[in-house]
Amino acid sequence: MREMPPSNPFDDDKLKEECGVFGVIGVTDAANFVALGLHALQHRGQEAGGIVSYSPDIGFNSARRFGYVRDNFTKASLMETLPGSLSIGHVRYSTAGSKGQTQIRDVQPFFGEFSMGGAAIAHNGNITNADSLRKELIERGSIFQSSSDSECIIHLMARSLQQNIPERMKDALRRVEGAFSVVAMTRTKLIGVRDPLGVRPLVLGRIGDGWVLSSETCALDIIGAEFVREVEPGEMLVITEKGGIESFHPFERTRPRFCIFEHVYFSRPDSILGGRSVYETRRQIGVELAKENPVDADLVCPVPDSGTPAAIGFSQESGIPYAMGIIRNQYMGRTFIEPTEQIRNMGVRLKLNVNRALIKGKRVILVDDSVVRGTTSMKIKQMILDAGAAEVHFRIASPPTAWPCFYGVDTPEREKLLASHMSEDEMCAHLGVDSLKFISLDGLYRAAGEAEGRNPDAPQYCDACFSGEYPVAPSDMIAKGFEVKAAE
Amino acid sequence: MREMPPSNPFDDDKLKEECGVFGVIGVTDAANFVALGLHALQHRGQEAGGIVSYSPDIGFNSARRFGYVRDNFTKASLMETLPGSLSIGHVRYSTAGSKGQTQIRDVQPFFGEFSMGGAAIAHNGNITNADSLRKELIERGSIFQSSSDSECIIHLMARSLQQNIPERMKDALRRVEGAFSVVAMTRTKLIGVRDPLGVRPLVLGRIGDGWVLSSETCALDIIGAEFVREVEPGEMLVITEKGGIESFHPFERTRPRFCIFEHVYFSRPDSILGGRSVYETRRQIGVELAKENPVDADLVCPVPDSGTPAAIGFSQESGIPYAMGIIRNQYMGRTFIEPTEQIRNMGVRLKLNVNRALIKGKRVILVDDSVVRGTTSMKIKQMILDAGAAEVHFRIASPPTAWPCFYGVDTPEREKLLASHMSEDEMCAHLGVDSLKFISLDGLYRAAGEAEGRNPDAPQYCDACFSGEYPVAPSDMIAKGFEVKAAE
Amino acid sequence: MREMPPSNPFDDDKLKEECGVFGVIGVTDAANFVALGLHALQHRGQEAGGIVSYSPDIGFNSARRFGYVRDNFTKASLMETLPGSLSIGHVRYSTAGSKGQTQIRDVQPFFGEFSMGGAAIAHNGNITNADSLRKELIERGSIFQSSSDSECIIHLMARSLQQNIPERMKDALRRVEGAFSVVAMTRTKLIGVRDPLGVRPLVLGRIGDGWVLSSETCALDIIGAEFVREVEPGEMLVITEKGGIESFHPFERTRPRFCIFEHVYFSRPDSILGGRSVYETRRQIGVELAKENPVDADLVCPVPDSGTPAAIGFSQESGIPYAMGIIRNQYMGRTFIEPTEQIRNMGVRLKLNVNRALIKGKRVILVDDSVVRGTTSMKIKQMILDAGAAEVHFRIASPPTAWPCFYGVDTPEREKLLASHMSEDEMCAHLGVDSLKFISLDGLYRAAGEAEGRNPDAPQYCDACFSGEYPVAPSDMIAKGFEVKAAE
Amino acid sequence: MREMPPSNPFDDDKLKEECGVFGVIGVTDAANFVALGLHALQHRGQEAGGIVSYSPDIGFNSARRFGYVRDNFTKASLMETLPGSLSIGHVRYSTAGSKGQTQIRDVQPFFGEFSMGGAAIAHNGNITNADSLRKELIERGSIFQSSSDSECIIHLMARSLQQNIPERMKDALRRVEGAFSVVAMTRTKLIGVRDPLGVRPLVLGRIGDGWVLSSETCALDIIGAEFVREVEPGEMLVITEKGGIESFHPFERTRPRFCIFEHVYFSRPDSILGGRSVYETRRQIGVELAKENPVDADLVCPVPDSGTPAAIGFSQESGIPYAMGIIRNQYMGRTFIEPTEQIRNMGVRLKLNVNRALIKGKRVILVDDSVVRGTTSMKIKQMILDAGAAEVHFRIASPPTAWPCFYGVDTPEREKLLASHMSEDEMCAHLGVDSLKFISLDGLYRAAGEAEGRNPDAPQYCDACFSGEYPVAPSDMIAKGFEVKAAE
Repeated sequence: MREMPPSNPFDDDKLKEECGVFGVIGVTDAANFVALGLHALQHRGQEAGGIVSYSPDIGFNSARRFGYVRDNFTKASLMETLPGSLSIGHVRYSTAGSKGQTQIRDVQPFFGEFSMGGAAIAHNGNITNADSLRKELIERGSIFQSSSDSECIIHLMARSLQQNIPERMKDALRRVEGAFSVVAMTRTKLIGVRDPLGVRPLVLGRIGDGWVLSSETCALDIIGAEFVREVEPGEMLVITEKGGIESFHPFERTRPRFCIFEHVYFSRPDSILGGRSVYETRRQIGVELAKENPVDADLVCPVPDSGTPAAIGFSQESGIPYAMGIIRNQYMGRTFIEPTEQIRNMGVRLKLNVNRALIKGKRVILVDDSVVRGTTSMKIKQMILDAGAAEVHFRIASPPTAWPCFYGVDTPEREKLLASHMSEDEMCAHLGVDSLKFISLDGLYRAAGEAEGRNPDAPQYCDACFSGEYPVAPSDMIAKGFEVKAAE
Repeated sequence: MREMPPSNPFDDDKLKEECGVFGVIGVTDAANFVALGLHALQHRGQEAGGIVSYSPDIGFNSARRFGYVRDNFTKASLMETLPGSLSIGHVRYSTAGSKGQTQIRDVQPFFGEFSMGGAAIAHNGNITNADSLRKELIERGSIFQSSSDSECIIHLMARSLQQNIPERMKDALRRVEGAFSVVAMTRTKLIGVRDPLGVRPLVLGRIGDGWVLSSETCALDIIGAEFVREVEPGEMLVITEKGGIESFHPFERTRPRFCIFEHVYFSRPDSILGGRSVYETRRQIGVELAKENPVDADLVCPVPDSGTPAAIGFSQESGIPYAMGIIRNQYMGRTFIEPTEQIRNMGVRLKLNVNRALIKGKRVILVDDSVVRGTTSMKIKQMILDAGAAEVHFRIASPPTAWPCFYGVDTPEREKLLASHMSEDEMCAHLGVDSLKFISLDGLYRAAGEAEGRNPDAPQYCDACFSGEYPVAPSDMIAKGFEVKAAE
Repeated sequence: MREMPPSNPFDDDKLKEECGVFGVIGVTDAANFVALGLHALQHRGQEAGGIVSYSPDIGFNSARRFGYVRDNFTKASLMETLPGSLSIGHVRYSTAGSKGQTQIRDVQPFFGEFSMGGAAIAHNGNITNADSLRKELIERGSIFQSSSDSECIIHLMARSLQQNIPERMKDALRRVEGAFSVVAMTRTKLIGVRDPLGVRPLVLGRIGDGWVLSSETCALDIIGAEFVREVEPGEMLVITEKGGIESFHPFERTRPRFCIFEHVYFSRPDSILGGRSVYETRRQIGVELAKENPVDADLVCPVPDSGTPAAIGFSQESGIPYAMGIIRNQYMGRTFIEPTEQIRNMGVRLKLNVNRALIKGKRVILVDDSVVRGTTSMKIKQMILDAGAAEVHFRIASPPTAWPCFYGVDTPEREKLLASHMSEDEMCAHLGVDSLKFISLDGLYRAAGEAEGRNPDAPQYCDACFSGEYPVAPSDMIAKGFEVKAAE
Repeated sequence: MREMPPSNPFDDDKLKEECGVFGVIGVTDAANFVALGLHALQHRGQEAGGIVSYSPDIGFNSARRFGYVRDNFTKASLMETLPGSLSIGHVRYSTAGSKGQTQIRDVQPFFGEFSMGGAAIAHNGNITNADSLRKELIERGSIFQSSSDSECIIHLMARSLQQNIPERMKDALRRVEGAFSVVAMTRTKLIGVRDPLGVRPLVLGRIGDGWVLSSETCALDIIGAEFVREVEPGEMLVITEKGGIESFHPFERTRPRFCIFEHVYFSRPDSILGGRSVYETRRQIGVELAKENPVDADLVCPVPDSGTPAAIGFSQESGIPYAMGIIRNQYMGRTFIEPTEQIRNMGVRLKLNVNRALIKGKRVILVDDSVVRGTTSMKIKQMILDAGAAEVHFRIASPPTAWPCFYGVDTPEREKLLASHMSEDEMCAHLGVDSLKFISLDGLYRAAGEAEGRNPDAPQYCDACFSGEYPVAPSDMIAKGFEVKAAE
């Protein structure tokens, strides 16, 4: 059932992380910390956010809002409605199944009242068998309130015969396929779980006597929490305010497959993934890219802001000067409510402008993080040429994105991915640039710390968007006719 | 789980009807008709309203809003999101269990997606075994989204083994105790049901080739629909767009007990209940009141606006001139957001003012519909005396309200009802007026058309708020320790 | 210059008072009292309101808002910005010259900073030579911020050579023609002035040690102030916090001509005008009307709410029972933002409904306060006939409205007034009713306390809207070609 | 007179440009172009914006709003109220005299209706004799509506005896001292004027058959307009839709003194000033800074985003690698409405985070554009040290800011400027860093294209904020006791 349509997002031709999660226990006014943590995770989901807290006096409380964290969860009048020392939160872009029509009831955390008390959950990732689970649950009398795949988890918990909530959560998550980093809470416990492959990140932090769970370390920094360790793939942590942490491994062990695109684009450059600075990995991608695909030119310019670290690395490796050839308007927001025709047609010019006096007559290398549909690359190329550049060379900090992600990233349908039906040369001709080169999959793995590159027999990362090799069969999609690449 | 608290209602010491329901099938842009119908039923619930519609193209749609119908459901931009020829709606005051903390998700209609399709329901009344039903459903894995008793119906439907929605609704409503007039819809059907006692009203209307269900006939008038008949107590109507109406009687038959307070106060004076003009019944109450409790005075003044018809009748019977001694500010709204201290303390003076030049030196009969806590009566008496009245006589158009209602009316706890612990004489002394008289229960029945008065062995109406005789045992309340008056 | 268009008013075919004014000095948080006073005067202007206050600490403060007083000036967060013991306020409908396009800067009080300090003024009435004054002021370099005629006063004050503000105000008002009741303030003084004819009302009240100026006495009641006396026509009161009241008569004396339509419709029935209860005058109009134009019928029904007092009088005089044949929806607001087509077409049915069961087969006398364009009368007649009335007789509590008002009342252009081009019989035929009768001008004067009726040589009231005899020549209108009726 | 207080800005210790202006003539829906231009000029004023347009059908129209251009002037429903082929606009930070209390009526463009028609003006700069002009105008009867210095211009125009608006504007501006780049419009003309010193920028562009005036060239780029030339210091351009451009020089000629801080910080890096790329000038500042103040270190990190170009230049000159040591949260807005205590205390951590894994153990050079109060520098230093940096060296891309600006830039009072009472060494000790060096005034002039550096006898720029040499005596401030540095 649809409620009012939300404001139309301004499309900018990037893959979108769908969620960030954050939770804290054992601090006064925990929800304030959650708000700050979500602000630091805003890049993982800009459409909406929600916070749940619990206080013994007035029970569970929640607030869910469309828009940025800073515009909603900074207000004293709202935050006062979220008292207590235990709180979790969620930011989201959009969930599978309801793109462009998100309703406030799709905004997590989700809440369920069970006979032994309530629980709230926040989920980053995507459940690949959600359709069949949902069908089964509806047949048995569950009523879904949202179009979100994540709601299956709370219904599975409601029907579990286990007598406490952590055990019910284990029951539920064992039925679930796909990628999930979950932060949950009961009246007394903060819970964190990562799927066996560990596709999405989840880290543990310490703040005073309290504990923190977060998608990324950058959100620990903002509240002054200390980074303790990553939650392990397949691990469940159950944290109580006084009694500390219990660790469980409720799933069958398997070889982890962390999402390599978190290194390329999703995570913030000031986060630490797998013990490495994300910024440093991206700079190293630029170094590898310059080694693999050198070109003679006058300037190396990033496509702001995501291409910046790789452009710095490319400049350092190649010796070609780094320059800000494209300037980003910092007052550019993401959404427009009932925009004028002219605004609708402006596209990238609202956000980016070419530094004309700098670019004129120059041979320019543009470094971008990825090419998705190619629409933005086309416009940027045109802007650069209009400014009088002599040559335009694209260098892309990831391999060609040829396959959709089913593990919590918003990707266009396969046929809309430029690389799904064009070779590198065809893309170069399509974009009309002097050269276009992508980093190799091995080069990317090297930059991410795998000195030997990708192990084709047992890939160290999930790279399905580049390779088409899906570590978990996307069963709902297969049921709809999606053809997974045969293992070679 | 609580969301943000709503704005604080401005208490005015009246019993409040908790809901109005309306539905229409077979007209273009049905939701527009529902909006008009709800506007005409606004007196039955001013806190919030909701509308659901169905169109084959885009499925079920809904909008739920706090505030008046006229402020929300008159906007083209909102109504365009509710297309289709089948629609139902609901206005509400507040539901049992969550007074003063209504959340948007408590606002009906409620919706459930079943394996055979979706259904939406709007409920006027109150389910007296909701607590035990809710407990049982949660133990079996249902997740409640609201604090509303009405949500039980949709969960019971979800768990029914019947293969179509009307049958599931019969299943569900057979488990439910209390008072209910329900308007529901599927993708193709408009459904109306009334509980076996027929406590709350529900009428059927005709508009062109379409059909209408409404709490009251005044809402038929606003859309130009013809009043066909009342839905019978215990009857279920299932209406399809083309195929007409089917009537079922799914419950055991019992003697009807329509709420007599609908005649006294809840229903609009321009509605027709049981074949009688509500206005005319109220005027007749004034006539009976004047016969039972005459007094020598200069003026008969209504307490606006609910005392007006009875005051007219009192004047006509007594021959004492009718006069507008108290003037109502027509710009008075119901809610104030973060009011100043002064506004908070103004109380009734914001709404009513005495016609000083008229009242001065006069012996005044004030006719009001009821006395609940007596707080407003006290203030009005003081205003009249301050204006220099020589004598103040209260005449009340209903018997003493001594018992709470559990069938869909918001009443204070028993001990807060003035008549629960004071006799008529004690109330007169408490209010400090020259006389205070209530109509007798028999007088009220006579005014409502029962020439012989109340049949004590088989009362023709539900009059529990006056008599303490509850036609359906309020089992949740009894479980909490409420003592029902023993049958004599 | 236009700002954003305001919301479209819902036309209901009544003359509209254009303003109410209120001021208070010598009480703590004076602006709160002004807010309450304006709430009680809301019937004099529903489009917008403004309040100015002065506190020695932070100087003059103001807030101006579209919408009802109760929706804006009840909020603590707003009222806290208006501290001090001296405050004035204004409610408005719309000013000459900018109908339907009011901007926030048209909302009074107006403020001017002079070399000897600031002053704020609130004006009820209309300046009939505003166009020529404005032209002259612009030519000399004044910059107007609003389209309001009232702004001339503050510019005239700015250019006065007098050295204190009360003297500058005298200077300014001596240049002004037309009708004005002005409440003004400086840093230390509350000022009230009435034009020499005293067309618009203005009264003086006392609250504790403080003083109050108000358009009507009903606004004294709401704050618990005592009614002292009317400000005299042509009088200026200058009130200081400590030093009491000074009275001036800066204009040439003339015979007063108070607006008789204040008695008929504008003022609230609980106000006192010229020592008489407005309600009582209106009831007496009904008595006169019944004497002048009796008719055999079953019921006397008011057109709510303005016809009510006259209907009561008509019933009492004629002996025909009074009844509520038409019910008003009390949740009807005045404005709709981007309404649906259906709402736009509903007209009077959104607001009024016929009590069908009562009316059917009856001969009905409908008592209304006036007929302006006749559009509403036509719809009401139709509703009554649709409900099955046997006969419909209109009795109107004022003479035919045949001339526009130029003294602060919003009237349609002359040709749109039904009575400007139709006789009583023609109007009866046009409306299609069984009879239509207006009270005579003499009858109206008698009801208003002039036992001998109207003195044609020296009319006691301004009755230009009925008689076409304008006590002040409307010079701007005459310049535009309006033909004033020649004196006979 | 104060209206409601605006939301509190989040202070970030930068000098703030106070305004940007934009105008266009000869294009359909000119206001849409103005909105885009203002969006590109948003960095010059983030508090509020306004647009005026003129269409022959409905005259002058305006809209003024607090907040970003993109949140207000992108909506079709608003822009439809601004039709016509001639339009001007303004963005503002705040004006002299009313800091932190801006009211909507302080938002430009200002409008005046004169006897020969209306005119609107938008002003970038500051009038240094506004206080005395205002006093004089009030004494003669002008009524000011805002607290803005710019309003003097329109009142001077209103009182001019000239018979057309351009001549009245010349009259007015000859009375005005200080800095002004003005864009104005009449019903048929677009007008641009720059003060004789040309302190603030103003450029002319061409779009199709239309003409554009803008503070900076970056705003020509966004609408696809061609950059024609700068408006000359002391020049007035009068542009008609059909007849082209007239150029006047109404002021006595003097040597220009363009604001050098526009090169350092205010203007956007993709704008062209004086024929040079602003980005390139800033990069060159980094080069000069590295030459003047070399230091051995591991990384050169910009303080984002304003230090970036100079950091790039510093890295290139010094050979020390450029790195993103501090990451900016791109979802950080400028204002918080009623923020929680925690948000209030977060300061720079909401906006910036250190790239801990990169910084740890490193000797870091931080390049920032300026030091104002030093509060942000202190916090950044602490963040870097907390992250484990071995050494911290500040390099500042401007000389010490020791004097307030009176020409349209918001600077703290002199005593709050760190450099007003500390030497470079004292500031270094105060901030607790390993070294702190500013570029020399000569170095800055060289980077700005003056190969010989600053000419002390006839400085090529206005550099009063560094040198204390004010090219126009700030007479209002001197009257208040401000001591201007004696010419040496």
